[in-house]
Amino acid sequence: MKRRNLFRTAAALALTAAVAVTPAFAQETFTLKMAETWGPNFPIFGDTTKSMAEMVEKMSNGRLKIRIDSANRHKAPLGVFDMVKAGQYDMGHSASYYWKGKVPNTLYFTSMPFGMNAQEQYAWFYHGGGMELMQEVYDEHNMLSFPGGNTGNQMGGWFRNEIKTLDDLKGLKMRIPGFAGEVFAEVGVNPTNIAPGELYTALERGTIDALEWVGPALDLRLGFHQIADYYYTGWHEPATELQFLINKGVWEKLPADLQEILRVAMRTAAYDMLTHSVHENSKAWASIQKDYPNVQVKTFPDEIFEAMVEANTRVLAKAAEGDEQAQRIIQSQEDYLRDARAYTNISERAYLNTMAELE
Amino acid sequence: MKRRNLFRTAAALALTAAVAVTPAFAQETFTLKMAETWGPNFPIFGDTTKSMAEMVEKMSNGRLKIRIDSANRHKAPLGVFDMVKAGQYDMGHSASYYWKGKVPNTLYFTSMPFGMNAQEQYAWFYHGGGMELMQEVYDEHNMLSFPGGNTGNQMGGWFRNEIKTLDDLKGLKMRIPGFAGEVFAEVGVNPTNIAPGELYTALERGTIDALEWVGPALDLRLGFHQIADYYYTGWHEPATELQFLINKGVWEKLPADLQEILRVAMRTAAYDMLTHSVHENSKAWASIQKDYPNVQVKTFPDEIFEAMVEANTRVLAKAAEGDEQAQRIIQSQEDYLRDARAYTNISERAYLNTMAELE
Repeated sequence: MKRRNLFRTAAALALTAAVAVTPAFAQETFTLKMAETWGPNFPIFGDTTKSMAEMVEKMSNGRLKIRIDSANRHKAPLGVFDMVKAGQYDMGHSASYYWKGKVPNTLYFTSMPFGMNAQEQYAWFYHGGGMELMQEVYDEHNMLSFPGGNTGNQMGGWFRNEIKTLDDLKGLKMRIPGFAGEVFAEVGVNPTNIAPGELYTALERGTIDALEWVGPALDLRLGFHQIADYYYTGWHEPATELQFLINKGVWEKLPADLQEILRVAMRTAAYDMLTHSVHENSKAWASIQKDYPNVQVKTFPDEIFEAMVEANTRVLAKAAEGDEQAQRIIQSQEDYLRDARAYTNISERAYLNTMAELE
Repeated sequence: MKRRNLFRTAAALALTAAVAVTPAFAQETFTLKMAETWGPNFPIFGDTTKSMAEMVEKMSNGRLKIRIDSANRHKAPLGVFDMVKAGQYDMGHSASYYWKGKVPNTLYFTSMPFGMNAQEQYAWFYHGGGMELMQEVYDEHNMLSFPGGNTGNQMGGWFRNEIKTLDDLKGLKMRIPGFAGEVFAEVGVNPTNIAPGELYTALERGTIDALEWVGPALDLRLGFHQIADYYYTGWHEPATELQFLINKGVWEKLPADLQEILRVAMRTAAYDMLTHSVHENSKAWASIQKDYPNVQVKTFPDEIFEAMVEANTRVLAKAAEGDEQAQRIIQSQEDYLRDARAYTNISERAYLNTMAELE
């Protein structure tokens, strides 16, 4: 006998016996409304929320459902933080660094320039104190925050001209938002933000000279490879992690088994997004290489990276000035990265370099 | 009212009304017996099975329990395949390549020399046809097979003398089991297998000249760094994935929600093991570096890798001779690796090299 039938049988019996257990059945089912920053059917990111919701519904046998509203419905892609905090939505899917203008220390939980890669960052979140620091920041805002999916190492962006010296960056108009834009500004770039739908035209018409978006899979759809020859390797977002947000009151109302189902589904969906990103980026990059031999992969020369690392340190120090919490977070990331990268260098990096030399 | 209380109430009512629904309650709870290849409390690997069982029990609110037997109980560390196939155990946790003597094509689902790294291999499993090929191999043996946790890139092993030329490998006695041992044998190494508990003494007394185990975290516990100065970077197991096995009849008896709970818990536990491995390896490597400055990290010279890649191709070709299924699996991995690695090279590898040059 299936459980649902069993419930019906039990409910019928309860009524027969005139014992009021019906309200208990009603409490068993929850539907959570989730606002995502992305538009409907946004590739990879949107697959992550859908897959999370499906796992939750199947595992709970329909007792917990998640209704996803994309940006076209709630009209507030960057309002997810406020809407979940206020309880207007139960959950959100977005990126923590979008809230840095409002709550500066949310910056540190997406990806930092010259920071950890995805595997290192997951290790920091789950074993190195990262989850606890993130929760400390969100505690004051009535929300729980969880990793929400990783894009992997983002590319440094599309440039119409090759960048050979630090001078080539002076006055360069580039779409690069957020903290990375601030770092780039320190070395002379003129950073701007432009809506995704206008990026191609802006680059084509010379309104901007360069732009960064994500990586091959999402870049390919926007067509930048048709009008820019130089694709630079990454430095500014080595492990962009999205975010699931949950209103605390909503979380606390869920029974322990549904909390665990939700926690595990979010965790799996986040890891799965990294796997999915590797797959889609591999396919897209193979397609760009085949059809657009004009595209050359470049890495900035050392003098540029050296200047940017210094700039990054300055901008970080300024962000942390007089903020004890920010200082603790930055220190935790720096300490963790030191040991994790030493190991990554003798394992993953050494192996990849060995294989590349054999080609 | 908690669901368990509700069940009790409903059960009580059912009895009062003299309707036999009690058997249905009994069917609701399942306890699966799982045999793991590892001894009790084996670090990282054993944490993975415990964490999987905990997630399952919490998510199912106790309806599905997994009882783990370590090797000290079932006494058959390499008998897991047979015991799960026969239904003596419901589930197993082991590594697919342990069964290659019995079912040759199980070899390909753990890690292959010069093959995919962990992120690439997860992408192959979940998006590149890997799961389907693995299931095709296990279908004939009445089992389902799932990824069971990744160690990350394994180190090439501990050597008492530096390896400078291909000649230095001739006649070298090394503990390196399995397929990698066959490849090493092709370039003159004399591979042997020795039980873990005897490895330290064998290396100390010169019974062997070198050995490979796993990586810093598990190697540190066995103390090889105290008696060998050269720690070589990896090539033979770039992404060792463990395995959950489930007897098909057992799987089919589970209701759909418990199947999904089990599937998602295994998937999360597997990913989590990679994260845990990165963390433990980072800590252990920092500790070795601090306390044992004698330890030097080395990479084999190009002539050795070139000879081993050729040897690997020969051994693989031999394994696949006249075996259409093996040929399809090898081809699928080769094709997937080509595109995935091209992307890894412009993203992860480029970033790690940039950072290393800045140090």
